[in-house]
Amino acid sequence: MTQNTETTQPGPLTGFVVLDLTRVLAGPYCTMMLADLGATVIKVEHPEGGDEARHFLPFIGDESAYFSTFNRGKKSIALDLQKAEDRTIFERLLPKADVLIENFRPGVLDRLGFSWEKLSAHYPRLVVASVSGFGQTGPYNHRGAYDLVVQAMSGMMSMTGHENGPPVRVGTSLGDLAASIFAANGIQAALLQRSRTGTGSRVDVSMFECQVALLESALARHAADGTPPTRMGSRHSGTAPFDTFKAADGYVVITAGGDLLFSRLAQVLGHIEWCTDPRFATRATRVQNQAELKVAIESCLAEDKVEVWLDRFERSGVPSGPINDVKAMMEDPQLISRGFLAPQGTTGLMSPATPILMSGLGYPKRHAPSPQLDEHRGEILAMLQEPLTSP
Amino acid sequence: MTQNTETTQPGPLTGFVVLDLTRVLAGPYCTMMLADLGATVIKVEHPEGGDEARHFLPFIGDESAYFSTFNRGKKSIALDLQKAEDRTIFERLLPKADVLIENFRPGVLDRLGFSWEKLSAHYPRLVVASVSGFGQTGPYNHRGAYDLVVQAMSGMMSMTGHENGPPVRVGTSLGDLAASIFAANGIQAALLQRSRTGTGSRVDVSMFECQVALLESALARHAADGTPPTRMGSRHSGTAPFDTFKAADGYVVITAGGDLLFSRLAQVLGHIEWCTDPRFATRATRVQNQAELKVAIESCLAEDKVEVWLDRFERSGVPSGPINDVKAMMEDPQLISRGFLAPQGTTGLMSPATPILMSGLGYPKRHAPSPQLDEHRGEILAMLQEPLTSP
Repeated sequence: MTQNTETTQPGPLTGFVVLDLTRVLAGPYCTMMLADLGATVIKVEHPEGGDEARHFLPFIGDESAYFSTFNRGKKSIALDLQKAEDRTIFERLLPKADVLIENFRPGVLDRLGFSWEKLSAHYPRLVVASVSGFGQTGPYNHRGAYDLVVQAMSGMMSMTGHENGPPVRVGTSLGDLAASIFAANGIQAALLQRSRTGTGSRVDVSMFECQVALLESALARHAADGTPPTRMGSRHSGTAPFDTFKAADGYVVITAGGDLLFSRLAQVLGHIEWCTDPRFATRATRVQNQAELKVAIESCLAEDKVEVWLDRFERSGVPSGPINDVKAMMEDPQLISRGFLAPQGTTGLMSPATPILMSGLGYPKRHAPSPQLDEHRGEILAMLQEPLTSP
Repeated sequence: MTQNTETTQPGPLTGFVVLDLTRVLAGPYCTMMLADLGATVIKVEHPEGGDEARHFLPFIGDESAYFSTFNRGKKSIALDLQKAEDRTIFERLLPKADVLIENFRPGVLDRLGFSWEKLSAHYPRLVVASVSGFGQTGPYNHRGAYDLVVQAMSGMMSMTGHENGPPVRVGTSLGDLAASIFAANGIQAALLQRSRTGTGSRVDVSMFECQVALLESALARHAADGTPPTRMGSRHSGTAPFDTFKAADGYVVITAGGDLLFSRLAQVLGHIEWCTDPRFATRATRVQNQAELKVAIESCLAEDKVEVWLDRFERSGVPSGPINDVKAMMEDPQLISRGFLAPQGTTGLMSPATPILMSGLGYPKRHAPSPQLDEHRGEILAMLQEPLTSP
């Protein structure tokens, strides 16, 4: 079975070398995943201040906890790619690398003299991944994109928020994070392809497109109904009950859309007759009459506290849960039991693992500190003396 | 450069065979990505009705557009793993497979006789991936999880919604989708590891943990401030302006937190003096005085329409955008130019690609229809006669 402790074994990507020109979040989160999974990630930073996220709030002690969260386990070297001697070092690193990843605006890497055409001609095995706001091509390719912009333009915000209320941003930088996780997939797919073909590829990931790829059934609903899906609070378009409900002292979520689950819920609430009530008897009628159903459920829930109801639902097999804040989440027995959060680096910040638990390995490594700017220059320059050993 | 048309070339995962026992969404979205990327995905469905998502709304003609969205390009065989003759077929497929993926409740696969211990003993090269609500171990491992439950328990909902308003669900099933995309990473990492070690692994992905992994800097902010982060509408904790703003006829989003971007914004709005105004002169003071800054920005924006402002911002290099609904998103020139959406299957539904554009390949294939239940039985049984050719 799985082991939940931190591994001391080599990770699945051991031996792969990633040259990392990315800054801030879309990119660094991707290379954090690759480093967690065992790749050697060489973070190439500008000598003047390095990755600008080194200065982002919040700080714990002297260290940006924002930066350290997304840069654990990487090695840093400071290089100014506009200076000849630093370019020479970078060019000597390229043949050692399996992957080059960057999140400059499209065209910047070309102007630095490292276009995909040149790179692929000189280093045919190299995988070159680019994460950008809108992709390398198309009329917006020159635009800077930020999380909020791609959440807004993709339709994600139009579907997030309360019914009849204004759109709202997903409360985390999903625009950056989704692009990072798709990019990690693209990079790994290109490495698997390389093991068949012997040659690398360019991987072009657009933050905007990654948001659109996460719209689930929204395009299908738009096509079927002829109207764009809109905000519906915490409900789901195709199933009910599936919502937030108010109990005596707070909210619970309940998802009991299938007939079996709904009958369990009706039983716990003391209203087994709902199962034969024509308003609630099938998933389709429950969706139609969800507002009425919500009133009926909440009038039951008002009689007891969240904790009491969650215990009853748990014992009856009704999928439900509390709406945790970050503190409550960190105290959750399931996460504690699996050791999913662990102290990281010099800040000791409790950090989530890359959520891929592997047999014999446990969670990918995550205790490593984030590097100081240029901390690993000596070690990285020493790599240049080693023979090539690409996996 | 990248090519944006559909590829006719083999995808990066060509040659890999995935046996897919997953149903509904967390799992099928993962194997959709793998099929898009070129893997042969054999969807093993129960003979009675198959994947329950075949019956999910919305329908286009006779076909569930929900099902077809997430099952394009897969091959279907109907097998009842509790019947001896069907088990025999499944057992003969296992040595042909590189990956087995399932999203039953933990323990179900074991009870069917296919525990990881047995599978790894008989098929040491097999990668076995499990996607579940809470993971294979721990006190909640037996619980069914649904998107809303993991969004609620993870803290994601506690940070999504308007300031001083109630928490709200991210308007797409991010609980399922994030787990799928992390699982695809775990599977590919395990395949890359196998190419080094020769042996497969068990990959255990928890929907709950995947949501926690997407909380960005929330744990760091909680550690630094001592209080859990809460809802702040569309704002960001660490930068300003970064929000939704009201213009004469609707909303725009603007992200101009850095000093250079802010100076461009101030210029466009005719208030270059804001750059030296002590309330707004630095990112830190803009964050402190964001409410005042928002009022000042909106009093300017009220004078013109969204379209006019977006044009000005675009010409001045101020990151901004409209809040599109799905219809407006589908008409976006950038997506059209890159061909990101394409008609799919027999429904002709416009569908997003897996957002990984690869040189020489374009977007992963996405035109293929979703299979009818048991459609590929003959083809799949014929595979059993072929010699083993695992990549």
